[in-house]
Order: sequence, then C-alpha cells, then structure tokens
Amino acid sequence: MMWKSASRSAHAVRAENFVFDNVAVMGYAREVMRKVRLAIMGSGSGTNCQSIFNAIDDGRLDAEVVLVLSDHADARILERARQRGVPAEVMDCAGYKNKFPLEEQERVAQRLTGLGVDMVCLAGFMRLVKEPLLRAFPNRILNIHPALLPNFPGVEAWTQALHAKVKQTGCTVHYVDAGMDSGEIIMQAFVPVLPDDTPETLHARIQVQEHILYPAAILSAVSRLG
Amino acid sequence: MMWKSASRSAHAVRAENFVFDNVAVMGYAREVMRKVRLAIMGSGSGTNCQSIFNAIDDGRLDAEVVLVLSDHADARILERARQRGVPAEVMDCAGYKNKFPLEEQERVAQRLTGLGVDMVCLAGFMRLVKEPLLRAFPNRILNIHPALLPNFPGVEAWTQALHAKVKQTGCTVHYVDAGMDSGEIIMQAFVPVLPDDTPETLHARIQVQEHILYPAAILSAVSRLG
Repeated sequence: MMWKSASRSAHAVRAENFVFDNVAVMGYAREVMRKVRLAIMGSGSGTNCQSIFNAIDDGRLDAEVVLVLSDHADARILERARQRGVPAEVMDCAGYKNKFPLEEQERVAQRLTGLGVDMVCLAGFMRLVKEPLLRAFPNRILNIHPALLPNFPGVEAWTQALHAKVKQTGCTVHYVDAGMDSGEIIMQAFVPVLPDDTPETLHARIQVQEHILYPAAILSAVSRLG
Repeated sequence: MMWKSASRSAHAVRAENFVFDNVAVMGYAREVMRKVRLAIMGSGSGTNCQSIFNAIDDGRLDAEVVLVLSDHADARILERARQRGVPAEVMDCAGYKNKFPLEEQERVAQRLTGLGVDMVCLAGFMRLVKEPLLRAFPNRILNIHPALLPNFPGVEAWTQALHAKVKQTGCTVHYVDAGMDSGEIIMQAFVPVLPDDTPETLHARIQVQEHILYPAAILSAVSRLG
C-alpha cells in the first residue's frame, strides 16, 4: 500500500532506484535529504528513548529527536530529554489512569505536525493511541514490544513467555494501530529462553536486543515511506 | 548457552552491566574495544557485502572487513572488495559445482583464525558450510535469507512466497548450522506482499530491508558473544 502511493517522496523514488541498481546507497540519500525528525512518547524510565539517543550519537541512526512527551510529569524519560537539551513536555490526560483523551491526542497531533515530525516512536508508553494521532501520522507511529508478536501482547511479556515455557522469545517493532500491540510488524529480534532464566535475566537480555533493534527498525520504517 | 559461558569476554561482561544499569551505552563499548573483524563469503554479485561496506562507511556498523572470499574467481563480490582495498581471495572447490570440500573448509578456517576474524558473514554463498568451519567459529557464522524462515528456505524464496500467496514475507539473519537455512534466528524484517507484485518487485523490496537488517543483526550477534 505504502509502496503504491502515487505521490512518492524524493526519498522513496531514490530508494527504489538504488534497489534496481541492486545497491543500497543510504549514505548518498543522507547527503541530499534533511535528517529524519523523531518524536518519542513514553510513560516511564525511557531506556528505549535513551537507546535512540545513543544510536544517534554513535552513528547508527541518522535522525534527530525534536520532542519527548510523557503522560507523567515525573517520568525519568523527560529528565533524559532535558539533560540532552531536547524539548520535553507533559501531556494532559485529565487525571485518567489509563485513558488518552481524544482532545489531548488532537492537540498532540497538531503539535507534532507543527514541528515537522516524520516518525513518532512509542517507548514504554502505556496508553492506547487512537484516530486523532493515527490519522495524522499514518504508518509513522512505531512501538517496541518485548516479545515475538503476535505472541504475548500486553504487560510483562517476558514473564508470559517464561510461564508458557517457550524456547525463544524476543522483541518486535511494529506500526501502531488502534489495538494493543496488534499493528503490522516491521522487525523482530529473537532471544533464546535459558533453562535457569528468571523474569529479570530474560528481560535484561531482551532489552539488549531492543536497543539494537529499535534504531534499525526506525531506518526500516523510513525506507518504506511513500 | 552463550550467556552462561564461564569465561565471558570483556565485551559481554560490559554489555551485561549496561543492561543492569538499564541503559545501553554501546558508544562506550566502542571506545574501549577493538573493532569487530568481519570476513564475508559470497558466490555472486555481493550486494549484501556492499551493504555491509556502506553500513561501515555511514556509521551504522562499527566493524572492519578484513577478508572477502568467493568460490568463483570472476564473482563481482571480489571486485567490490578490491575496489575498497579489502583482501579478496578465491577458494578452491576442486571443480565441484555445489560441494565445499572439507579440506578447503579446514584451510579457510585456519586462514580466518589467523586473521583474528570475529564473525563470518555469508552473503549469497551457495555452498553448505560444515564442521571444519562451524567448529572453528561457533555462533560466529551468519547468513541472510530472503524470507521469514523457517518459511521458504532454499532458492528464489521470494518467488516461493509469491506462489504460496502469503500476505507477508521478509528476510532473516540466522546463525549457520550444517543444514540449509536452518540455524537459530537472530533477526527478521517483514515485507508485505502486494496484490500486483512480481518476483522482481517483491525481491527488490526485500533487498532494501536486507541492507538495513544485516548490519543490525551483526551488532546483535556481537552483543551475544560469550
């Protein structure tokens, strides 16, 4: 669908030419394109947000983070952004514990559009995104989940995997749709479950892979933009 | 298994500390570690070899390619290596069309060990690797395959996917074992199959994702070394 868009961006057309040349010349695309502009939304400590910062700093991801948003004013993710000099803002969820009010989603969509955001990365964001944001950023909102989706959606996916006695689990970056952890998959990293794993040891190994996977999946999503 | 090794490398210990700090500080690891030394083996045009070169050049992969090997003296992959100043050598397969003689595998293993190779990347290499190389490089030989393994192993995997009328296919980086496309999976990138796809258009979109996936999966494999 994305690939059939009549109004392809310069990036997409170039990427396609590269393919038919049978060589990916991403370095060239970088020189002629502006940097990809990312927004990150999270509810907690922001380790995946930090991994995106790290990937930018060490060259794995040619992008810039223009805004970090959280639904909790005291979330560590906001502190990480401020330490870096990235604007950090609190969303107003009107006191709801889990709901993401539609009016606030509308406001956030306008804020992100105004900033020229290309891609929105959810990083431990604990509320469901709905139409106002999805419509404003079609195929441009990503999430990372600590399991091989569609297996083990929802909370503590690593504990679910352990209880299910699977031999391997991992992490998934997917497009966000209106469901929970249900959008189209972009990339997955696999992690073996070891006989003496605890939830903590398994989660720790999955997190190492999350921090490698998410930056690569962002590049992948950018390469698919039509 | 890898994670339970009693003799962990400095890299693995550091990576683990990062996890328990809940922050992946790969940039730091880079400063204190020597670069990862890669060898690449291919039979054909070497587009995935080129994508590894490109990833190194644009900063996505902090590694160096110390040797490129081919079973065909006129393979374009050797030319790509020479153009870059990377040593390019031909393997002696004794006139066999498909077989990879064990004596030659033994010789190659010694050559790679002598060069201090950390990781061997197969990139369109059309012979099966067996014990001599697998024993010398346990969990250190990777391959990329143009399908979501275990679906569609073998040749023209994108055509297989099209004939099977699946809605999505993709590419897989996996550890190499003695079978064909059967080793443990490291990472996968997903690619939707479109209604009007031909083998060529589908293959082209998969290749774009291969060139993003392989460098990330090499980093993933390095992060798992025990």
